[in-house]
Amino acid sequence: MDSGRAEAFSDGVFAVAITLLVIDLLPIGSGPDLNAHVLLHHWPEYAAYVVSFLTIGIMWMNHHTILGHVSRVDRPLLALNLFLLLGIVAIPFPTALVAKHLTGPGGAVAAVTYGLVMIAISFGFDGIWVYVVTHAAALGAPLPREALWQSIPRFTAGLFVYVVGTLIAAFASAPAAVAIYGLLAVYYLFEHLPSPAGGDAPAGADGGDGGPGGLAG
Amino acid sequence: MDSGRAEAFSDGVFAVAITLLVIDLLPIGSGPDLNAHVLLHHWPEYAAYVVSFLTIGIMWMNHHTILGHVSRVDRPLLALNLFLLLGIVAIPFPTALVAKHLTGPGGAVAAVTYGLVMIAISFGFDGIWVYVVTHAAALGAPLPREALWQSIPRFTAGLFVYVVGTLIAAFASAPAAVAIYGLLAVYYLFEHLPSPAGGDAPAGADGGDGGPGGLAG
Amino acid sequence: MDSGRAEAFSDGVFAVAITLLVIDLLPIGSGPDLNAHVLLHHWPEYAAYVVSFLTIGIMWMNHHTILGHVSRVDRPLLALNLFLLLGIVAIPFPTALVAKHLTGPGGAVAAVTYGLVMIAISFGFDGIWVYVVTHAAALGAPLPREALWQSIPRFTAGLFVYVVGTLIAAFASAPAAVAIYGLLAVYYLFEHLPSPAGGDAPAGADGGDGGPGGLAG
Amino acid sequence: MDSGRAEAFSDGVFAVAITLLVIDLLPIGSGPDLNAHVLLHHWPEYAAYVVSFLTIGIMWMNHHTILGHVSRVDRPLLALNLFLLLGIVAIPFPTALVAKHLTGPGGAVAAVTYGLVMIAISFGFDGIWVYVVTHAAALGAPLPREALWQSIPRFTAGLFVYVVGTLIAAFASAPAAVAIYGLLAVYYLFEHLPSPAGGDAPAGADGGDGGPGGLAG
Repeated sequence: MDSGRAEAFSDGVFAVAITLLVIDLLPIGSGPDLNAHVLLHHWPEYAAYVVSFLTIGIMWMNHHTILGHVSRVDRPLLALNLFLLLGIVAIPFPTALVAKHLTGPGGAVAAVTYGLVMIAISFGFDGIWVYVVTHAAALGAPLPREALWQSIPRFTAGLFVYVVGTLIAAFASAPAAVAIYGLLAVYYLFEHLPSPAGGDAPAGADGGDGGPGGLAG
Repeated sequence: MDSGRAEAFSDGVFAVAITLLVIDLLPIGSGPDLNAHVLLHHWPEYAAYVVSFLTIGIMWMNHHTILGHVSRVDRPLLALNLFLLLGIVAIPFPTALVAKHLTGPGGAVAAVTYGLVMIAISFGFDGIWVYVVTHAAALGAPLPREALWQSIPRFTAGLFVYVVGTLIAAFASAPAAVAIYGLLAVYYLFEHLPSPAGGDAPAGADGGDGGPGGLAG
Repeated sequence: MDSGRAEAFSDGVFAVAITLLVIDLLPIGSGPDLNAHVLLHHWPEYAAYVVSFLTIGIMWMNHHTILGHVSRVDRPLLALNLFLLLGIVAIPFPTALVAKHLTGPGGAVAAVTYGLVMIAISFGFDGIWVYVVTHAAALGAPLPREALWQSIPRFTAGLFVYVVGTLIAAFASAPAAVAIYGLLAVYYLFEHLPSPAGGDAPAGADGGDGGPGGLAG
Repeated sequence: MDSGRAEAFSDGVFAVAITLLVIDLLPIGSGPDLNAHVLLHHWPEYAAYVVSFLTIGIMWMNHHTILGHVSRVDRPLLALNLFLLLGIVAIPFPTALVAKHLTGPGGAVAAVTYGLVMIAISFGFDGIWVYVVTHAAALGAPLPREALWQSIPRFTAGLFVYVVGTLIAAFASAPAAVAIYGLLAVYYLFEHLPSPAGGDAPAGADGGDGGPGGLAG
C-alpha cells in the first residue's frame, strides 16, 4: 500500500481524537447556575484538555516524521500502526478520568491510568520505529542501520519521563504527575529540532533526532 | 467519479467511526469513587473497544484493497459503497450493547446483534467485490473474470466464522462469541498476505487473496 | 482558492456528519434489561438512521458533482457552501427528533422539522448551482448558460417531494412522511444517471442531470 | 514538513470541530412532549449553533489563506498552529454555555467566556501571521516585510470587535454581545475581498487583506 493512504487515514484518526477532547468540557456549566466561580472550579478539566491536546498534537508530528521516511507500507507496519492508533484514540478516556478525579481521592488511580496509556503508546511508537529501521529497504526508507542505535537515547528519554510520572502519580501526587506530562509535551513542542526543511541532512540523523524521539519515545 | 474522491470520503468515515468507539469508554469512572477495582470491573468495555477497533481497522484495509483495483467509480458502486458504510458507521452501536451487557442476562442478545451487523457488513463487502470483478472493464480494474471464482473460499471463510460466532452467542456463550470475533480480527491482522508491494503479481491473484477475503469476506 | 481544498473540507464535514448519526443509536439498550423485544421496539431510531444516512450520502455525491464542474472557488461560493454545510451538519438534530417521537404525539412536529431542514438544504444546493452556472467563466467551469434552464425540472422535483412530505407530516401521517423521505433517497441512489465516466458528454447536460438535480434539488 | 500535510491535518480538525457543534442540539426535544413551542423555545441553542458555525467556517478560510502563503512549515509554526487549534477545538464549549444560559442569569458569564475564547483565537491567528511574515524566506512564502505593517489595521479590527463584544456581555447585555459576534461573522462572510483568483496580485497585498485580517484578526 502506498504510504500516503495510510498517513491520510492516520491523520484523520489523529484529527478526530484531538477534537473529541472537547466532549469532556461540554457538561461544564450545564447546571442551572453559571458564574465565574463555577467555571474556574473546573480547572482540572481545562488542564487535562490542554495536556492531552498538546500531547496528541506532538504525537501527530512524530507519527508524520516516522512515516515520512517510508514510501510504502506493508501489512505488519499497518498492523503496528493500528495498535498505535488504538492507544491514541483511547486518550480521551484517561483524560476524562484525570479531569474528573484529579483533586479527589481517585486522583492517583486516574493519573496512573493516564501514565500507563502513555507508556503503551510509547512502546507503540518504538515498535513502529524499530520495524521501519529494520525493514528500511522493503519500505523504501533511506535509513541506515545505525539510525536504530543512534535513536536509543531518545527512545528511552520520553518513556523514562512517563514511567517517572506514573510512579509519582502512584506514590506521591496526582497533580504533580499531570504537570510532568504537560511539561513533557511543552518541552517537545518548543525543542528546536534539526531543521526538517534541510533535505540534504542524512536521513539517519533526522530519524534519530526527529523520529521516535520526541514525546512518545 | 474519480475513485480517489470516493476513497477519501470512505477513509474519512472509517476514521471517524473508529475514533467514536472511545465514546463508550467515557462514562467509565464518572461516579464519585474511582479505584483500580472500578476500572478493572469494566473489562467488557475495553474488550469490546479493542475488538471493534481492530475489526474496523482491518475492514479499512480491505476496503482500500478492493477500491485500489479500480480507477473510477460509477453510481451503482457508490450506492453499494454507501450501504457498506451504513454498516461500518453502525458498529459503535452493537459495540456498546456488548460493552454493557456481555456478562449479564442480555449478553446473548448483544453478541448476536454484533454478529448480525458483521454478517451484514460481510455481505456488503461481497457485493462490492462481485460488482467490481463483473464490471472490471468499466471501472478500469485490471481484474480477470477468474478473480471472482478464486476468491470464493475467502468470501466464505470470514462470513462462516461470523455465522458460527453468532450461533455460539445465541445458544452457548456471549463471551466466547466475542472472543471469536476478536480472534478473527487478530488472525487477519497478522496473516502474511502476498506482498501487495509486488506490482508484478497478477491482479487476479492479489484480488482473490487480499480483496474481499480477509475479515469481512 | 483552489476548489480541491474546499472540496476536501466539505468532504470532511460530510464524513463526520454522516458518522455522527450513530450517536442517536448509542443510548438504545443502555437500561438493565436487554432482549430482542427492546431492540426491535426502537425501529424508529433505525429507520431515521438509515433515511438520514442515505440522504447525506446522496447529498455528498451531488455536492461532489456540482463542485466537480469548477476548478476554483471564490468567496461568495465559499459563503454559499458554508450555508449549505450549516444545514448538512444540522441533520442529526431532526433525525434525533424523528427517532424519538415518530410514533408518539410529537411525530408530526418532528417530521415537519425534518422536512423543513431538507427544504432549506435544497435551497442551499439550488443557490450554489445557480451561482456556479451564472459565474461559470470566473470559476473555470465549462458550463453553458443553458445548463441552468435545462436543470430546472430537476431543481423543482426534489424540492417538490420534500414539500409534499412536509405537508403530509403536518396534516396526515408522520411515518408516511418519513417513508417518503426515505423512498426519495433510495430512488436517487439507484437512478441510473447518464454515465459520469463519459468524459465526452457535454458538460451542460451532465450538470443538468447530475448536478443539483438528484436528492437535494 | 511539507505545508500540505499540516494543512490537511488542520482541515480535519476544523471539519470535526464545526460538525461537533450539532451535539449541543441533540438533547433538544428529548423530553416526552414535543411541539412547536418547545422547539422554538430553544432559539438560543440555534443562534449559538449558527454563530459558531459561521465563525469556525470563516476561521477555516482565514487559516487556509495564511497557510496558503507558505510552502513548508517548521517546528515553531507547527507549535503556533497547535495552539491556534487548541482554541478552535474548544469553541463548542463556550457555544454550549451560551446556548444554555443566554437568556438566564448566567448569560453574562457565558457570553464573556465566549468572547475570551475568541480573543485568544485572534491572538493565535496574529501570532501565526507575524511568524509567517517574519520568517517568509525560511517558509518559502513570497511575502515582503511590509505585509506585516499593511495588515495591522485588520489585525486590530477583528480583535477590537471581540473586545467590545466581551465588554458588552460583561456590563450590558449577553444577547447583544452574541448578536455582535454573529454580525462580525456575517460581515466577513460577505465582505468582497480582493479576488484570490487573481494570481497576479502582489502576495503582500493579498496577505494583508485576506490573511489574518478577517474574523480572527
